[in-house]
Amino acid sequence: MKIIGIDPGLRNMGWGIIAAEGSRMRHIANGIVHSETGELGPRLAALYRGLCAIIAEHRPDAAAVEQTFVNKDAVGTLKLGQARGIALLAPAEAGLEIGEYAPNAVKKTVVGVGHAAKEQIQHMVRVMLPGVDFAGPDAADALAVAICHAHHLQGRALRVKATA
Amino acid sequence: MKIIGIDPGLRNMGWGIIAAEGSRMRHIANGIVHSETGELGPRLAALYRGLCAIIAEHRPDAAAVEQTFVNKDAVGTLKLGQARGIALLAPAEAGLEIGEYAPNAVKKTVVGVGHAAKEQIQHMVRVMLPGVDFAGPDAADALAVAICHAHHLQGRALRVKATA
Repeated sequence: MKIIGIDPGLRNMGWGIIAAEGSRMRHIANGIVHSETGELGPRLAALYRGLCAIIAEHRPDAAAVEQTFVNKDAVGTLKLGQARGIALLAPAEAGLEIGEYAPNAVKKTVVGVGHAAKEQIQHMVRVMLPGVDFAGPDAADALAVAICHAHHLQGRALRVKATA
Repeated sequence: MKIIGIDPGLRNMGWGIIAAEGSRMRHIANGIVHSETGELGPRLAALYRGLCAIIAEHRPDAAAVEQTFVNKDAVGTLKLGQARGIALLAPAEAGLEIGEYAPNAVKKTVVGVGHAAKEQIQHMVRVMLPGVDFAGPDAADALAVAICHAHHLQGRALRVKATA
């Protein structure tokens, strides 16, 4: 099963794809879709086309999107919201089910605690996906989201098996 | 020239299309794209498809989107941001230039003052677009945004003429 993780951002939209079989995971690809400064419509269109192209190329079976941290800056929250709308639309248009995970849930799955530094997360992603090279910090975050979703789906499968 | 105005919302995405020739305006159509409660991805996809279908049917030449009011509710701002991302993406993907207007700018253009009640705006939209029936309050707001953009474009055209 292939899973795409997405870390939404207006300037840098991180993405990462892994293959998961039971508890085994393998890195497939990761990257960042950039959008330059300028008018918002064309920037969102560039992000959307970029994500759609990646989904068309890798054909993942499921998607997971990080739940944007809602800070106290309303303008920043609105911008992130707009990028996040695109991050959800692209996999939804491809017919994928989408898991949504808060940053703390991702950290807890990957590192074991809800409050972990970026370096810890990247270290654990490297341990879990041997040989991976990150296109950037946002791509590493996206891979962490994909790993979180793989764990979640595996847990669900085990529960189904246990109750069957 | 045909202009589509959009009033973004996750539950109700208002839209309205007018034809503008110089200072003359005519109503063409207005409506609301609904998205039912449920998972966010499919809701955003429904809004996107709805807006794309309207743009494909009416083939507007320009678009205008209301700038979401950023209130103090971060969760609400994030939701609106996600809907607004879709409201900008649909016309951008159709190659349309998009004007963005704050609610106060729309009110000032339509009613003459920046702080006007909904009823005043709807009254003036009815005066400016004789015979119009609103599909709902969000559709009336969307027509007001389209009128605001028509005024803005006309002003730009006059300035170009004056300096030519």
